[in-house]
Amino acid sequence: MNFTPMTPSHIEDLARIVSSDRVSTGSSVLDLHAKDQSQHNPVRPEVVIWPESRDEVAAIVTYAENQRIAIVGWGSGSSLEGNPIPVQRGIVLDFSHMNKILAIKTEDFQVDVEPGLIYQDLNEQLRYSGLFFPPDPGARATVGGMIANNASGTRTVHYGSTRDYVLKLTVVLANGEIIEIGSRSAKSSSGYDLLHLFVGSEGTLGLVVEATLRLVGLPEEYAAAIVTFPTIQAASEAVVEIMRSGLNPASLELLDAACIRLFNQEKNLGLKEVPTLFTEFHGPYMTYLVEILEMVEEICRDAGHLGFKRGLGREERNRFFEARHELGEMVIRAHPDCGTQVIDVAVPLTAYSDIISSASLAAEEAGIPGYAFSHAGDGNLHLNLAGRKNNPNDWKLIEEISQELVIKALSYGGTATGEHGVGMGKKGYMAAEHGKSLHWMKQVKALFDPKGILNPGKIFP
Amino acid sequence: MNFTPMTPSHIEDLARIVSSDRVSTGSSVLDLHAKDQSQHNPVRPEVVIWPESRDEVAAIVTYAENQRIAIVGWGSGSSLEGNPIPVQRGIVLDFSHMNKILAIKTEDFQVDVEPGLIYQDLNEQLRYSGLFFPPDPGARATVGGMIANNASGTRTVHYGSTRDYVLKLTVVLANGEIIEIGSRSAKSSSGYDLLHLFVGSEGTLGLVVEATLRLVGLPEEYAAAIVTFPTIQAASEAVVEIMRSGLNPASLELLDAACIRLFNQEKNLGLKEVPTLFTEFHGPYMTYLVEILEMVEEICRDAGHLGFKRGLGREERNRFFEARHELGEMVIRAHPDCGTQVIDVAVPLTAYSDIISSASLAAEEAGIPGYAFSHAGDGNLHLNLAGRKNNPNDWKLIEEISQELVIKALSYGGTATGEHGVGMGKKGYMAAEHGKSLHWMKQVKALFDPKGILNPGKIFP
Repeated sequence: MNFTPMTPSHIEDLARIVSSDRVSTGSSVLDLHAKDQSQHNPVRPEVVIWPESRDEVAAIVTYAENQRIAIVGWGSGSSLEGNPIPVQRGIVLDFSHMNKILAIKTEDFQVDVEPGLIYQDLNEQLRYSGLFFPPDPGARATVGGMIANNASGTRTVHYGSTRDYVLKLTVVLANGEIIEIGSRSAKSSSGYDLLHLFVGSEGTLGLVVEATLRLVGLPEEYAAAIVTFPTIQAASEAVVEIMRSGLNPASLELLDAACIRLFNQEKNLGLKEVPTLFTEFHGPYMTYLVEILEMVEEICRDAGHLGFKRGLGREERNRFFEARHELGEMVIRAHPDCGTQVIDVAVPLTAYSDIISSASLAAEEAGIPGYAFSHAGDGNLHLNLAGRKNNPNDWKLIEEISQELVIKALSYGGTATGEHGVGMGKKGYMAAEHGKSLHWMKQVKALFDPKGILNPGKIFP
Repeated sequence: MNFTPMTPSHIEDLARIVSSDRVSTGSSVLDLHAKDQSQHNPVRPEVVIWPESRDEVAAIVTYAENQRIAIVGWGSGSSLEGNPIPVQRGIVLDFSHMNKILAIKTEDFQVDVEPGLIYQDLNEQLRYSGLFFPPDPGARATVGGMIANNASGTRTVHYGSTRDYVLKLTVVLANGEIIEIGSRSAKSSSGYDLLHLFVGSEGTLGLVVEATLRLVGLPEEYAAAIVTFPTIQAASEAVVEIMRSGLNPASLELLDAACIRLFNQEKNLGLKEVPTLFTEFHGPYMTYLVEILEMVEEICRDAGHLGFKRGLGREERNRFFEARHELGEMVIRAHPDCGTQVIDVAVPLTAYSDIISSASLAAEEAGIPGYAFSHAGDGNLHLNLAGRKNNPNDWKLIEEISQELVIKALSYGGTATGEHGVGMGKKGYMAAEHGKSLHWMKQVKALFDPKGILNPGKIFP
């Protein structure tokens, strides 16, 4: 695919579409939109534009398609697989000005939002209505970015992924057409599910300019517990049993001893530095949760736990979650000369124990500092590996560990990416994961974006 | 689209692909595959074939595409919108020989099945594993038919629709290619969601030959209640409040007085003949459910209920559900000279009270016997209308009521079909519901089935 190199006259044309103070070719602006939080090489776009309406987005995309200029949507740059890096340069559309809540429909459990809204800000606003938007990738992600990646997080085991919360989208297609897909109904059997085709398509099929999200009631009560285990195997055995019990945890996170060590160093949590489960339950009243936690303790005891700390107060629980969400940064702080790569695979539950054990072992054997943490209830493993920035051998080893893990996950019938998306990092595994259906994904791409201007160089090998 | 009229030589060719005892042009066989449970005119196929493997399906579809012969998959014929009627004649593929459970993976909460398996038979087999497949359309539907229609039912308010339980599909495409889509992982962000494009596509994009379904644990305990109300409005007010409470009912069904009258006549249930809510809750132990039911009673009392019958025994609850599932047949028995049409729309919760009241009123004013029953928690209304078979005026009125309801549902941002699919009956509303995105659905159809041989004449106006 050949793209047109941009000239000053292109920039002038674009500045006529939006006001010129929302078009920038400034060096620091281009740098800020050249990379996400992954280790992939930065590529600067040729121009960054901040649209303020769907019509502006449509006009810019139309222009880009006519001129054959690459165009990539930008949320907060918090992705981990190079998903929004403008590898073919061109235009970055930064959605940070389109960050409004358009309507809160409390009694329908729905909210209409613009794509640049940060999900934590959405939940902050929703608090007064007693509702919330459950997916929680952790980073300060935008709703648009979450939709693009089908983001999920610590609550997904109970509440599902972003795709489970998207009812309706307004999308600008590559030809500049604005379409609405989906409905406000909780369920539907009406025609093809284009909605979920766009969710997780990483901005390669169209750009979301408005979303209607489903909300759920804030739980009346919650109760959490921290459980320690002698080994990862024992902890993952407990995970499988908790999932089988039907007790329906709202969170079920497994962290290895290395992660807990960081928590203690940075947050003074005073936790035992062994494999640790963090689990949380939501319910309508407290005595219910007390009984649930008793059942969970029994399961953990059978799996050979070392200790069970229950009845965490709200503060203690928040502290733990905060630490959990900062883990990526903690690893960087602990290894100031290193870059990090987060491996993200997901497998069926029976393969979980094996995949997490072999991941940790592989890092240990390679002498690469590894931090295994995972949304265990979903069978979704993250392994955060720290490699010295100027040591190509470290990065070769990291690449090898990563490859081995992905191939292992696929051999179990799992997926190369549980929640971080394909971006640039997982392109190479798409043929192995999807086989012949990858061809049909490409055909769908060609149908919606025949000139390939939307986020080129992603998803497809 | 012109299809090739079939000749004896086509039938001979097909009999060479499968054994000749699995190819039939017998009159009674063709009649049995000419209509579903809707009021749409029957159309006989030219031949019925019972494939026994994916390779046979692929070979037959390849042949049909080369010869330009229409081909429609057939489950149990229980659909309600004419979805599998072979309007362009040609081949019906009856999947009843492909009805095996291929593997139960208890510890992964998964099952691999063939499409012709009846879902009740699946759940019967699963009972010993403590797991079940929740979607329950009621009729003896096949898993393949449920996937084609994204079927749902009385448990959807808690457990979701069929699409929430499909992890992986093996599909035969129009060109005879066999592709696998999805994975065994509970979550994924890997490439385009083709999986959910096929779910609900009513056999127009491909034919499912194998499915991996997600299962959930059978609830330890359940408790149900029957609540009576003076008016539909009062009952629907209670529905909205129960949904807002976060008490998470496993079923929340609203039936009008006419339905209850039939229950009493046929099943001797001795129920008060007024608008009635049936609600059920699932949980890990009984005292929890007792408390939940107390909260529900309080909500219903505030909404002005007439009575609250709680703590139904398993038998009483089963009797009620049985009656609920037989409602369609009861209506037919109550009006032996009539045919019936079931209207199926879904709306956001705030529109629910209005839509159900105006539906009942419209039927009453037209003098058409109407039975309103609905998956109330989902905002999904069914209105079963009985029209005298030889009275065109009845059917004109039914058509008018139906149109008015669908248009009203769409004006509320709802959908023309909550769970019965588009088939032939809802084609006319697709432009109104989907606007410009209907064009893109057509393009997707043209991509996967360029000759239009798969279930022609459905979904698209």
